[in-house]
Amino acid sequence: MALVELVPNFSEGRRQDVIDKILAAMKEASTAKIIDSRADPDHNRLVVTIVGEPEETFKAGFAGIKTAAELIDMDEHQGEHPRVGATDVVPFVPVTGITIEECTELAKRLAKKVSDELGIPTYLYEAAATRPDRENLANIRKGQYEGLKEAIKTDPDRKPDFGPSELPKAGATVIGAREFLIAYNIYLNTDDVEIAKTIGRNIRHKNGGFAYCKSMGFATKPYVQVSMNLTNYKETPMAMVVETVRNEARRYGVAITETEVYGMIPVDALLDAAEYYLQLNGKWNRSQIIEKKLTEME
Amino acid sequence: MALVELVPNFSEGRRQDVIDKILAAMKEASTAKIIDSRADPDHNRLVVTIVGEPEETFKAGFAGIKTAAELIDMDEHQGEHPRVGATDVVPFVPVTGITIEECTELAKRLAKKVSDELGIPTYLYEAAATRPDRENLANIRKGQYEGLKEAIKTDPDRKPDFGPSELPKAGATVIGAREFLIAYNIYLNTDDVEIAKTIGRNIRHKNGGFAYCKSMGFATKPYVQVSMNLTNYKETPMAMVVETVRNEARRYGVAITETEVYGMIPVDALLDAAEYYLQLNGKWNRSQIIEKKLTEME
Repeated sequence: MALVELVPNFSEGRRQDVIDKILAAMKEASTAKIIDSRADPDHNRLVVTIVGEPEETFKAGFAGIKTAAELIDMDEHQGEHPRVGATDVVPFVPVTGITIEECTELAKRLAKKVSDELGIPTYLYEAAATRPDRENLANIRKGQYEGLKEAIKTDPDRKPDFGPSELPKAGATVIGAREFLIAYNIYLNTDDVEIAKTIGRNIRHKNGGFAYCKSMGFATKPYVQVSMNLTNYKETPMAMVVETVRNEARRYGVAITETEVYGMIPVDALLDAAEYYLQLNGKWNRSQIIEKKLTEME
Repeated sequence: MALVELVPNFSEGRRQDVIDKILAAMKEASTAKIIDSRADPDHNRLVVTIVGEPEETFKAGFAGIKTAAELIDMDEHQGEHPRVGATDVVPFVPVTGITIEECTELAKRLAKKVSDELGIPTYLYEAAATRPDRENLANIRKGQYEGLKEAIKTDPDRKPDFGPSELPKAGATVIGAREFLIAYNIYLNTDDVEIAKTIGRNIRHKNGGFAYCKSMGFATKPYVQVSMNLTNYKETPMAMVVETVRNEARRYGVAITETEVYGMIPVDALLDAAEYYLQLNGKWNRSQIIEKKLTEME
């Protein structure tokens, strides 16, 4: 069975009846499960985490976008968080049994359907981007709803991937695919924050470290923390990062006390670690895991 | 969701129609899945592996025992493998979300039902044993069907836990609960089998090693192998065993090339290893795993 995570961001974090209607529409439209939803009144934004089979997350996504377009008028919207539409951004994230390429196809198909059926301009981003400058969400959201209203008409670079070059009251929606992001912290048995900061710099992409690692050191108590976002655990595995931090820390006579996953993690990221450390190499197949076998039989 | 593995052993490995009827009866009686079934003509024995929710494995077990009793006459049975009944032995094995104690309760309930409704004497073994000498299956099977026929009537020590002190043509059935057994091999980069044999001896329970490890060294090619049965991965975790073998091997200047799980393994055994090596301690909860969260919501 394939599982996708969909994380639609809606521009409504205050009116509970609107929030409820968006959530209800997504629940009704599909068998995908809403595993988390957070409404932030200051940001005036609702972030929903949905997990399910690929087509089911697609259905939930469309239902959410449709309902948000009916209930949210971007001319009335105010909030701290940058946004361009009633449904601002919708990433498809592979969890298990599906590739980023397949998620990209889902994203493109959803963007086209949203533009065709709802008349909303859509932009493709990250792995689904059709141009390098659209891989980065910030470029697409430049000027926000208010600025895009004019730019979409006049600037050829701001032309959407699908739909009209004119913003309706629902604004535009950015749809794409990205790898699962693991928020991961490693604690070191020292109160010297400089050690955490140095290691945080050394292991991150920006400074010559791992390609899919963004990291910083923080002065947490009682022990300092190397805090990171692992943006592609398949290419930059947790085990490789942990062992590198262990080696770097050893240079200062410091050891890892424990590590921390912040939020959710796909089981595959942990199975990768088990296989790495137990040295399960060529003689091993994940279908030997009872639970995987049961899922395959369904 | 709780998952149990049931591994009924039937005294029929030759007549395909009988094998088919036993399998069909178990399939029909429950939603539990038959993930493996092996009929051995020499042993004249059928070993079935069933996985499902606890009550479903219970139903499958009863249906299999009932059908085997109708179709197998132990007075006619011959085979190399020791056995006392048409259904010889039925262990309940916890896979996930269930304790060995709960599996023991299932075993006791099944044994009582089999005796009450089918008139078959039943013995409880391993974790479900009511007496220390019945923890070991070999003690219960002593003399096999032919010997037990007399002994059950005359020897008070052979009195069954449930049912009559007289064997019907279906013989007796041994029912119990045990932990999941992981067949696990570790390869060392040497062709010196003495190193594997020494390590195999040092780490096993019999020689002062791990309580739930049975191990031996073998001269496999190109590298030697420490072969083991881990009979309780919760108490004797894979990571602890691997790291001990690594240390022992280092004494001889030898390293682990890879390891091998032979057959099935519960995902929890691998998650234990991931947590051990990644040092996911107090700040970690398995409900952060997306797939576990989905299962919990069902």
